[in-house]
Amino acid sequence: MSQPQKVQTAITPTRAENYAEWYQQVVRAAELAEASDVRGCMVIKPWGYALWENMQRSLDRMFKDTGHRNAYFPLFIPLSYLEKEAEHVEGFAKECAVVTHHRLEPGKKADGRIGLVPAGELQEPLIVRPTSETIIGASFAKWVQSYRDLPLLINQWANVVRWEMRTRLFLRTAEFLWQEGHTAHATQAEAEEETAKMLAVYADFAENWMAMPVAFGSKTAAERFPGAVETFCIEAFMQDRKSLQAGTSHFLGQNFAKASDIKFLDQNSTLQHAWTTSWGVSTRLIGGMIMTHADDDGMVLPPRLAPAHIVILPVLRDPEKAPMVLEWCRKLQKELGQIDYYGRKIEVELDARDLGGGDKVWQWIKKGVPIRLEIGPRDIEKDSVFMARRDKGPKEKLGVARSEFIATVGAILDEMQKAMYDKAHAHRAAHTKSITTEADFRAFFTPSRPVQENEAAEIHGGFAIAAYNGDAALEARIKDELGVTVRCIPNEGSFGYDASPANCIFTGAPNARRVIWAKSY
Amino acid sequence: MSQPQKVQTAITPTRAENYAEWYQQVVRAAELAEASDVRGCMVIKPWGYALWENMQRSLDRMFKDTGHRNAYFPLFIPLSYLEKEAEHVEGFAKECAVVTHHRLEPGKKADGRIGLVPAGELQEPLIVRPTSETIIGASFAKWVQSYRDLPLLINQWANVVRWEMRTRLFLRTAEFLWQEGHTAHATQAEAEEETAKMLAVYADFAENWMAMPVAFGSKTAAERFPGAVETFCIEAFMQDRKSLQAGTSHFLGQNFAKASDIKFLDQNSTLQHAWTTSWGVSTRLIGGMIMTHADDDGMVLPPRLAPAHIVILPVLRDPEKAPMVLEWCRKLQKELGQIDYYGRKIEVELDARDLGGGDKVWQWIKKGVPIRLEIGPRDIEKDSVFMARRDKGPKEKLGVARSEFIATVGAILDEMQKAMYDKAHAHRAAHTKSITTEADFRAFFTPSRPVQENEAAEIHGGFAIAAYNGDAALEARIKDELGVTVRCIPNEGSFGYDASPANCIFTGAPNARRVIWAKSY
Repeated sequence: MSQPQKVQTAITPTRAENYAEWYQQVVRAAELAEASDVRGCMVIKPWGYALWENMQRSLDRMFKDTGHRNAYFPLFIPLSYLEKEAEHVEGFAKECAVVTHHRLEPGKKADGRIGLVPAGELQEPLIVRPTSETIIGASFAKWVQSYRDLPLLINQWANVVRWEMRTRLFLRTAEFLWQEGHTAHATQAEAEEETAKMLAVYADFAENWMAMPVAFGSKTAAERFPGAVETFCIEAFMQDRKSLQAGTSHFLGQNFAKASDIKFLDQNSTLQHAWTTSWGVSTRLIGGMIMTHADDDGMVLPPRLAPAHIVILPVLRDPEKAPMVLEWCRKLQKELGQIDYYGRKIEVELDARDLGGGDKVWQWIKKGVPIRLEIGPRDIEKDSVFMARRDKGPKEKLGVARSEFIATVGAILDEMQKAMYDKAHAHRAAHTKSITTEADFRAFFTPSRPVQENEAAEIHGGFAIAAYNGDAALEARIKDELGVTVRCIPNEGSFGYDASPANCIFTGAPNARRVIWAKSY
Repeated sequence: MSQPQKVQTAITPTRAENYAEWYQQVVRAAELAEASDVRGCMVIKPWGYALWENMQRSLDRMFKDTGHRNAYFPLFIPLSYLEKEAEHVEGFAKECAVVTHHRLEPGKKADGRIGLVPAGELQEPLIVRPTSETIIGASFAKWVQSYRDLPLLINQWANVVRWEMRTRLFLRTAEFLWQEGHTAHATQAEAEEETAKMLAVYADFAENWMAMPVAFGSKTAAERFPGAVETFCIEAFMQDRKSLQAGTSHFLGQNFAKASDIKFLDQNSTLQHAWTTSWGVSTRLIGGMIMTHADDDGMVLPPRLAPAHIVILPVLRDPEKAPMVLEWCRKLQKELGQIDYYGRKIEVELDARDLGGGDKVWQWIKKGVPIRLEIGPRDIEKDSVFMARRDKGPKEKLGVARSEFIATVGAILDEMQKAMYDKAHAHRAAHTKSITTEADFRAFFTPSRPVQENEAAEIHGGFAIAAYNGDAALEARIKDELGVTVRCIPNEGSFGYDASPANCIFTGAPNARRVIWAKSY
């Protein structure tokens, strides 16, 4: 036990040094995920998957509370289904994994070697679902006959595949996990209400569970889901001042109902097409959580979603006292594990590995566990614990009586959750600017000095709230010149919403809408 | 409300008339699943998926209680990975969905029309995972360096694809949902212990949650998982007297560790290959549940896994009293919904649809909900409910005081769970025969009269417990002649275990092991 300890410290590089590389290193050091040998596909490691399970549990409860039921539809979509909605196939055709054969047999490979090669060619290729509107639409067409069958409110938890050319763990991967809600309604108004309701659920989840402030509103046509009449989104503000589209809710009108032939007899016995919606969030949210909360020491987890709320690190240097220390810690673990916290019990890891104390502490800091308890014989003598909070500096520790800690742990976690939200909120506020001239707009998004690729936050400007006349060509030109797009036309009640009259800052056109512009992921 | 009611009654055909068709009709009438237009892929409908979610929740808790953590690995397996383990690829090559292209572009289709065709050919084809030993092995090889990293205990919930030629809802589908446990250990003994432990978890789940009695033991070489050293299984007994392999646990030895290069430094700093296991159950279990419990009226759900324990059917014929009846029912629903039952709350559906009472009752009978409560103004006057249990006849109803029902509902459900298990257990006992001569064996599995395809139970014999010398050629011949195989070499403690000396009933060889023979799914 007197061996020198190889204490691993903070993340290299820091955010300021190289933000993109910092992100990858946080994902790695926190053991959230890693790249696989399969192009663009990630392995979600246990700590990352437990986080996703907690997110799923909270979201799933919200979906069920709003009347939705889960179901499961085929992974494969016949090519002819995808072709049914013209804009839809246009949007996804360039990034599809295509199944063309259904077995392997010995043969000559592309490189001339003998080995197994695809055989049993399919008459019609199958697409690995990039999203399921068309395959779920085929079921809806069977399930919906009468107005009595509506609304039909379905959600699916699934994997989807989009063959992205540039991938990045969680943020953009070829395969990702998500949920996709699909609903059908008798009227336009009901479908629009559903679209708005689920957008509100996403905003609630992002803010109150992930501690990630979001703006919410509609997308411009350029950013719309292929085939949708209107796309709504939640947009989160990352530490490098870029925006992240964190969830979308689509009003699909009757486009997909017509493509899939979802029809019903209304109360007057008239045959009508249904009105449909779809909405989804994905493992991308984990990327957003990292870029909202992580720091130069690694991950920082919002307590309400953390796979473990607390880690107990027993000090076992004295072999005589080690069994007593361990037993005391196990008892504490058990007692804490009986406390309710946001729909589950407080989860406590006890790390008794034979590993240097400094290594251990840093591993848990990097993993982002909210509370660390270091407990040795002297703490036990005083019936107290030595507590460190992940949202404070790594050396800031506090002795607390055991009973007091047990009585206040829920409140401490709540305080951390709130502090994380407030910090992110303040960061967004500090880098959001109301802009009224094109010159100011350009300056806001233009670095004042030459910058290197991946250089830190300040080069990206932030959220610019600026009035815009809605012209698509203008938006395309701004995107081209500055890499900046309209992230969101805020809804009433959203951050950035302002309905007072304004002139377009680019054209001077009157009655322009104030929208949120930013660079984005 | 005086319209004639179109009352749908029992399943057509009955089990005795056409067992295979009866099965399909139960799945359909219970709204558990349906076929999709994608060959061999099913749609799991909300009632079926909720059942799967309950099964997942119980199993997941058991996996976590035995130290396993969930993670997620890529859907796609490079062909070269699959080729690493010779027996493994041999076992799966004939039924693989193969991804060969990564986009679509306009071109000439096979039928001469112009449309989208596969483009962007991959250098190496990707296989949609039929099982994940090889892709998970690649991660394990990175994660395992030292004995300190072992045991590595991972589980994955996922979809898998096997291009089966003859499919059947739940029992055999091209895509299915499952969990696959994958573990790595430092010693053979530990890996063997893990294999046995998870087999016991499966048996526990089948018997105590699904109310489905199982025998458990090892497979003969012919039925072994491709690449495994030994495969263990749980085998359930269906109402048509066939056996269903309901779960498997594989001891993989060092085969996959060698194929994937999973090596560790042991305590003596010697580099060794790890010992691995894998184990899985799938949505096939739902097929087993149906064929164990469903009757000629439709599905019968074991209370511990039922998506809803109770359905309340308010009698709303009198429009003046309807609001009062509804409110009374809602209050009851809420109160019942606060009662704990096996890790969740009692779940209560309130079916207030404007639909004939007879139709409604039969829909819920077919869905298999354990308890139906019919409640009208007169019941409310007496502060009582009219209760029907799914395991009794459809007309057997009982008036119970509201307070008594609330106080005893948990006990009633427990009683039903036990009754279902006992009934299945008795059915298996009635059709299990200890057989000591080949003539008796052949007679047991040979119908006494000409039978039609899919005809009922009695043609399949049942479980024959018969001593066998272990010769693979003999087993192959019996399979060929009678369609009967060794389902399981029972472990100590299993149904059918008998270690007393016996001679092979086919060859007379001494010291033969008594094994379970049956026809199977």
